[in-house]
Amino acid sequence: MKIAETPKAPYFAVIFTIVAGKIDEEDAGMSDQMAKLAHEQEGFLGMEAASGDLGIIVSYWNSLEAIQKWRQNSEHQVAQKAGKSGVFAAFKIRICKVERDYGFGM
Amino acid sequence: MKIAETPKAPYFAVIFTIVAGKIDEEDAGMSDQMAKLAHEQEGFLGMEAASGDLGIIVSYWNSLEAIQKWRQNSEHQVAQKAGKSGVFAAFKIRICKVERDYGFGM
Repeated sequence: MKIAETPKAPYFAVIFTIVAGKIDEEDAGMSDQMAKLAHEQEGFLGMEAASGDLGIIVSYWNSLEAIQKWRQNSEHQVAQKAGKSGVFAAFKIRICKVERDYGFGM
Repeated sequence: MKIAETPKAPYFAVIFTIVAGKIDEEDAGMSDQMAKLAHEQEGFLGMEAASGDLGIIVSYWNSLEAIQKWRQNSEHQVAQKAGKSGVFAAFKIRICKVERDYGFGM
């Protein structure tokens, strides 16, 4: 996975932090499903993910409207499944406006 | 590590994404140093981190001024060291305003 190639700010980010319950194939499948749906969604700019004690998935978007559509298409389904299967012990979703960015070596 | 206990939005986030070069003790030491400096900084709200192919460190702050002070105190030192030692092959820092959040199970 690489650092997401995002345009000049401002743009938007969704920070999804997860404390995993029982981690299993279904968990991996759900993350894949969310990623797949994001990539298909208009306005999607990129995604970065890492996991240890916490899982962190950051997706980038060109508008709040695009985020809203993605959520309507995917999150509801994913959250429902997660609630039923007990995959996530806890999660937090933060909707952000990226005001400035800079980097090195990309 | 737990999900950061942040106040009612709006507040601010710094998303720090890293592609590691050679990972060694110095790398771990620098992350510890950045975290330590953040915790000591006025306006710091919490931090979440995970690492795989990418490392992602998200810190939360009550103002842009607090972020600016943290950067002045720590990032410059850290980046200089990183540049010299080749620890980070690439990194991106995104300064964000968290406009809305919600979660489950925290």
